Amino acid sequence: MLVQARTLSGFKDRLPQEAIAKSELLKKIIDVFESFGFVPIETPHLEYADVLIKQGSDEIQKELYAFKDHGGRDVALRFDLTVPLARFVSQHRHCLTLPFKRYAVGNVFRGERAQRGRYREFTQCDFDFIGSKSIASDSEIIQIIAEIMKKLEVGKFKISINHRGILNGICEHLGIAQVNEALRIIDKLDKIGKEGVREELVKTLGLDFKQIEALLGFVSIKQEGDFEEFFASIAYLKDLNPTLQKAISDLEELGLILKNLDLNSCMISFSIARGLGYYTGIIYETTLEELPSLGSVCSGGRYDYLTQTFSKEALSGVGASVGLDRLLAGLEELGKMKIQKTKALILCIAMQKEQMSLVQKIAQDLRNHSIPSEVYPDSLKLSKILSYANSKQFSYAGIIGENEAQTGKITLKDLKTGEQETMDLAEVIKNCQKSQNH
Amino acid sequence: MLVQARTLSGFKDRLPQEAIAKSELLKKIIDVFESFGFVPIETPHLEYADVLIKQGSDEIQKELYAFKDHGGRDVALRFDLTVPLARFVSQHRHCLTLPFKRYAVGNVFRGERAQRGRYREFTQCDFDFIGSKSIASDSEIIQIIAEIMKKLEVGKFKISINHRGILNGICEHLGIAQVNEALRIIDKLDKIGKEGVREELVKTLGLDFKQIEALLGFVSIKQEGDFEEFFASIAYLKDLNPTLQKAISDLEELGLILKNLDLNSCMISFSIARGLGYYTGIIYETTLEELPSLGSVCSGGRYDYLTQTFSKEALSGVGASVGLDRLLAGLEELGKMKIQKTKALILCIAMQKEQMSLVQKIAQDLRNHSIPSEVYPDSLKLSKILSYANSKQFSYAGIIGENEAQTGKITLKDLKTGEQETMDLAEVIKNCQKSQNH
Repeated sequence: MLVQARTLSGFKDRLPQEAIAKSELLKKIIDVFESFGFVPIETPHLEYADVLIKQGSDEIQKELYAFKDHGGRDVALRFDLTVPLARFVSQHRHCLTLPFKRYAVGNVFRGERAQRGRYREFTQCDFDFIGSKSIASDSEIIQIIAEIMKKLEVGKFKISINHRGILNGICEHLGIAQVNEALRIIDKLDKIGKEGVREELVKTLGLDFKQIEALLGFVSIKQEGDFEEFFASIAYLKDLNPTLQKAISDLEELGLILKNLDLNSCMISFSIARGLGYYTGIIYETTLEELPSLGSVCSGGRYDYLTQTFSKEALSGVGASVGLDRLLAGLEELGKMKIQKTKALILCIAMQKEQMSLVQKIAQDLRNHSIPSEVYPDSLKLSKILSYANSKQFSYAGIIGENEAQTGKITLKDLKTGEQETMDLAEVIKNCQKSQNH
Repeated sequence: MLVQARTLSGFKDRLPQEAIAKSELLKKIIDVFESFGFVPIETPHLEYADVLIKQGSDEIQKELYAFKDHGGRDVALRFDLTVPLARFVSQHRHCLTLPFKRYAVGNVFRGERAQRGRYREFTQCDFDFIGSKSIASDSEIIQIIAEIMKKLEVGKFKISINHRGILNGICEHLGIAQVNEALRIIDKLDKIGKEGVREELVKTLGLDFKQIEALLGFVSIKQEGDFEEFFASIAYLKDLNPTLQKAISDLEELGLILKNLDLNSCMISFSIARGLGYYTGIIYETTLEELPSLGSVCSGGRYDYLTQTFSKEALSGVGASVGLDRLLAGLEELGKMKIQKTKALILCIAMQKEQMSLVQKIAQDLRNHSIPSEVYPDSLKLSKILSYANSKQFSYAGIIGENEAQTGKITLKDLKTGEQETMDLAEVIKNCQKSQNH
C-alpha cells in the first residue's frame, strides 16, 4: 500500500527556485545585521509549554502546537522568536555582555485557520538590541531597516514612526481608559476605514462623539515636510500632559539622528499603533511605495518588559522583525526577484562514458577557479542533456567528445545565444569569469 | 510568579560564539554544494505521521515526536531529512528535472534517551543526487565530501569505501541469510571488538565457527596500497558469485575515477557497513586522522528504493549527510576553530552624547567601505566601554570626543596592542581594510 505524498494544510515545501530566492534574501539581510555588530543565536523549536504560554496572548494560546512528550512533559512548538529570546536572555544572563545585540532566523508555528498566503509554519527573522535605553539604539534599528531595504533593492519605501507614549498620552488627555483596546481598534483604520473604527469605538468602548472625533483627529496627524516643521506644528501637544511631552521629546531626539544620517524615508505618523500591547516606546512599520497593499514588511519598536516572565531584572529591548515571506512575495510581484534555478554557471558534458572522468577533472579545475560547475552524470544523446541544461538555465555547456579529449580542448556552448566554439581550458575559464562579472 | 527560564532536556541554545562557528561552517559547506550544482529545498518540520512512520525503523517510531494537531490529524516532527526528501520527490515529481541534485539543512527531532553529546533536536545537512545510476554520481558525492573536508581545514582525513554488494555477496557465499542483522552486528566492530562481534553472531544468528571466522576474515580486507594493487589482490572474489562480481566491478570503476581526480584520501575497506539496511550500492564513511574517536563526520551511499513508500516509480539515489555537530565538536577539540564573538571589526564610541550622531554617521561610512562597525549606544566612562570592546574581541575602537568632533578626526585604538593614534576617516578606513586582509 502506497502512502500518499502530501504536506499538512498550512505547511509547504519550497522548491529550489524559491529556496534559492529565500536564501539570497536572507544572506543580504544577515550581512546587514552583522555589519552593525549583531550576532546570531539559536534556540530550540520545542520548549516547555509554560515558558511560551505565559507571555502569549489568548489567541496565541489557542494556536499553540502543544502536546505531551515522551517524558510526559507539557511541551510546545515556539510561535515566535521573542518569547524564546526573553527565556534565553534570562537563562544565560550571567554570560551575556550588555548591550546584547542578537539576530535570529528560524521557523515558528501557529495553528491558525489556513488561508491564502498565511502559513502555519513560517520563517521569522528578528533582530533585537537588549539593555540600552538610549535613543541611539532605537535609531540604529530604523537605520538597519533602511539599509536592508536598500540592499534588497525594493525601490522606494517608507518607514512610518510613532511612539506608544503619543497614543497613551492622547487617550489620557481624552479620558479613554482602555488604551490597548482603543489601539487595537485604531490599528484597523486601513482595513475597516474611519466609519468602521468609529462604530467599533462606540460599541466596544462606549466612547462619545467628541472623544472619537478628537481621537481620530489626533491619530491622523502625520509629518508631511521635514522634522523641524513637523515638531513645530505639534509643539502644543507637549503641554497637554507629561506622557505626551516625554514621547515628543523622544521623537525629536530620534528625528535629529535620522536627519543627520540622511534617512529621509522616515516619517512620523500618529496612526501607527502596532498590534501588540507589548511595545512601550518608539514603534515603526515599513511599507513599499510601489506595493502599499502588501502591508508592513518590517515592523518593530521598543519594549520595556522583555524578561518580566522570567526575571525580576528589568531589561529594556528594542528590535524589529523582517517579514521575509511578505518581502519574497512583494519582490516577486514587482518583478524585482532574480530567478535562479541553479548557482552553477556551466554544465560539463561527456559525449561518451570514456570522457566522464576527464570531464569531472575539468569541472574540478573550473571550481578551483571559483566557477561553479555541474557535471552531467550520464552520457546520453546531447540534445537530451542540452534540454536539461536549458531547463536549469545554465549559462554555458562545456562539451567533451572524442575529438576534444584527444586535442585537449573543450567545446563551449553559450546557451543564451546558441553559439559554440572549441577552445582550451584557459579560454573557457576566461569566458566564464567574464560572464560572472557581468 | 516567575516562570523558570529553562530548556527541555536534550535541547539546547546556541550562544553567539557557537552560532557564529556553526554558520561559518555551514557557509563553507553550502558553497561546496552549490559549486557542484546542488540546489536547496525546504520541507516542513511537521508532517503527517504516516508519511514519516512507514519508512522509519522500529527504533525511530519509538523516538518520534508524534501528536494530534488542532484538526485531530496525526502529525509528527521529522526525524531526518531523507524521508521528507522521498515525500518531496514523489509529490513534486512532475516539476522536477532529473537528475535532481538537492541539498537541505534543517533540524530534526528524536526523543532518544538524553546522553552526553547527543541531542533530541539536532541539525542535519544532507546532499543527494536523485535519478542517476551512473558511478559518476557516486564518485561526485565522494568528491564533494573530500572538497568539504579540504575547505573546512580539518587536517588529514580518510574516506573509507565499501559496497553493500560485497557484504551481501560474502553472506551469500557463506550461507548467511540474515544479511541486515549480520551487518548490524559487524558495524559494532569498533565498539565491542572482534570477541564481542563473534559472541553476538553466535547468539543472535546461530552462525558456526567456520562462518564467523570466514566472515570476519572477509570484512577485515582493506586497501593498503593503490587501487590497482588492491583489486588485483581481491580478483578471486569475483568468481565466488555474481553479486560480488558486480560490486567489485562498481568499485573498480569508482576507483579509476577517484584516482584520476587525485582523491588519495579514499580507501576501500570491507568493514564499513553503515547502520541502515537502507543502502544498496557503494557506501562510505569519513574519519579525521587526528581524531578517529570522533567517528564518521560524513557518511552516505547509494540507495535504490528512496520513493518506494510513495510511488511505484523506482528512483535511485546517492547521497550523504554531514555530521555538523560532530564536526563542530571535532574542530573545537583540535583547536582548529576560529573563535569569533562578533563579525564587526571596530567599535565606534561617542565620549559624550553630543557626538553620538556623528559617531553613527562615521560607522555608516565605514560600513559603506565594507568595514562592519558597531556603535556603542550610550556614552559611559571610556574604560567601561573598552572593557565591553575587549570582551567582544573587536580589533579596534574608534573614539570620538569633543576634540575629535571639532577637528574632524578619529582616535583609533588598536585593541590588541593598546596603541592609539588620532587620524582622519580615510586613514581609519585604510587601517581597517589592512587588518581585514590579514
